[in-house]
Amino acid sequence: MTQPQRLPSLRRVAVCGGTHGNEMSGVYLVRHWLRDPSELQRGTFHATPFLGNPRAIEQCTRYIGRDLNRTLTADFLNSKNTNLYEVQRAQEINQTFGPKGSSQAYDLIVDLHNTTANMGSCLIVDSEHSLLSMHICDYIQKHSRIRRCPILFYQQQPEEETYSVCSVSKAGLALELGPQPQGVARADLLAHMRSIMACALDFIELFNKGTLFPAFETEAYKVVGPVDFPRYPNGEISAVIHPNLQDKDFQPLKPGDPIFQTLSGEDILYDGDDVTYPVFINEAAYYEKKVAFIKTEKRTFSQPALQKMF
Amino acid sequence: MTQPQRLPSLRRVAVCGGTHGNEMSGVYLVRHWLRDPSELQRGTFHATPFLGNPRAIEQCTRYIGRDLNRTLTADFLNSKNTNLYEVQRAQEINQTFGPKGSSQAYDLIVDLHNTTANMGSCLIVDSEHSLLSMHICDYIQKHSRIRRCPILFYQQQPEEETYSVCSVSKAGLALELGPQPQGVARADLLAHMRSIMACALDFIELFNKGTLFPAFETEAYKVVGPVDFPRYPNGEISAVIHPNLQDKDFQPLKPGDPIFQTLSGEDILYDGDDVTYPVFINEAAYYEKKVAFIKTEKRTFSQPALQKMF
Repeated sequence: MTQPQRLPSLRRVAVCGGTHGNEMSGVYLVRHWLRDPSELQRGTFHATPFLGNPRAIEQCTRYIGRDLNRTLTADFLNSKNTNLYEVQRAQEINQTFGPKGSSQAYDLIVDLHNTTANMGSCLIVDSEHSLLSMHICDYIQKHSRIRRCPILFYQQQPEEETYSVCSVSKAGLALELGPQPQGVARADLLAHMRSIMACALDFIELFNKGTLFPAFETEAYKVVGPVDFPRYPNGEISAVIHPNLQDKDFQPLKPGDPIFQTLSGEDILYDGDDVTYPVFINEAAYYEKKVAFIKTEKRTFSQPALQKMF
Repeated sequence: MTQPQRLPSLRRVAVCGGTHGNEMSGVYLVRHWLRDPSELQRGTFHATPFLGNPRAIEQCTRYIGRDLNRTLTADFLNSKNTNLYEVQRAQEINQTFGPKGSSQAYDLIVDLHNTTANMGSCLIVDSEHSLLSMHICDYIQKHSRIRRCPILFYQQQPEEETYSVCSVSKAGLALELGPQPQGVARADLLAHMRSIMACALDFIELFNKGTLFPAFETEAYKVVGPVDFPRYPNGEISAVIHPNLQDKDFQPLKPGDPIFQTLSGEDILYDGDDVTYPVFINEAAYYEKKVAFIKTEKRTFSQPALQKMF
């Protein structure tokens, strides 16, 4: 048996809600934890709750000036121009929980998101190289009461610069729960998110206490790229997500399957060469990004065993 | 048999989408009809499509300055102060399709809405005194392929001033389809709305051709009043819609049934004296109006026969 990978214990953990101000599960949970943090306490550590984008939350909108969750890059973190609220906020978050990439950075940030897509309780990590995050996901998959928590790798290229709020800490994990409309808190999704969060904290507690987490194999979905809506020459959308594709996140889409339906009633078929597994199908916030859905590939990934450094 | 009520034929009919700029079924349908109005044509008339709030549509938000669908009142229509975009827009709509209350006003406006609540294909009219609208609803209920189209009366008091876009015309009807997140167009709801709209136009065509529509009785839900979320002393919401109530629009809610769940896990029970039929449960746009759901009473209403004036 090969030796487990070793990482230092995890003392500085944070959980962020409202990175997008209209994704309400995280907003409501973090507001609750700011009043009563007892749920975030374990024997070896406690998680610090914080609101990502307070002004956007106040206005119940995704962001004020630009998407905060695309703003944690070197360019914005080093920018002297903080006219945009989210640039200022990114720098504050980096100061409190980073600096990004440094040894002073927090050990882990869990960032709480919602989607209007039918993605269930999705766990988003950068890539299969995020060892700690992958072990947390595996633990959640095996121990949470939620039936299915698919893992999504967001990074398309290993050299790609990360940009999300949870990229400020040494390890990051985003929970992406849906379907839930923007500006709405549903009790069922709130309970699911809460239970997954508790599971993540339980993992950290066990890790800090020296538990050996064995090597494992797991299926995960890796982002391949976005697909835009069909459009008229003037840029207006000319077709909607096909009823056969709507709500079918993480299900196989084969070449020739219908993906859009025009307002005139014609089907538009998927012309890719291979089966893909679409995610973020009909996500409200992605219309402005010209994304109707995101293609992924499903693969099996192996992870080595993990144990605390003694 | 009593004589039917007589109304003049209906020549000037309009259909409005995007009164709220992030309710996408109407936005997409009206944009389509502006390109190809053939679906809106019948032998005796055609319906004129228009976008209610173009600037809000552009920004994919409910409104810019204030809710357009609360702005068609005498005060705003006569106001010299048109700094607010929606006041200006209300006056334009009134000029084109009204003036409200005058004999020059359009015969009918159908206004297309979406809700995040599970209200199915709801037909909203002012009150049981809206004879023409009630006959259109009855025809839709009997002839549309949609299984259930509940009728909702929005006016609480007969003397109440109307304020909606479709109050500008002599008769009005709002279609309220859900659940659909703001900023998202779902193919299924688009098809339902389209089919109900076609049914309404078919009714008008038959009416104009002299068809006698017999007297009928129908069940309808009449607004009683709103219920706010429980709140902390600082005004923040302290509980979410109870999972037992979520998605149960138009279903009986009995005294003692749970309606909210606090973040600490306690149930809050309905303390009314009578059974009520909640609607707009967890509607995203109503959080800012301090409305968690709206209570209605279910009653049976009789309508006299209707025929065109010869």
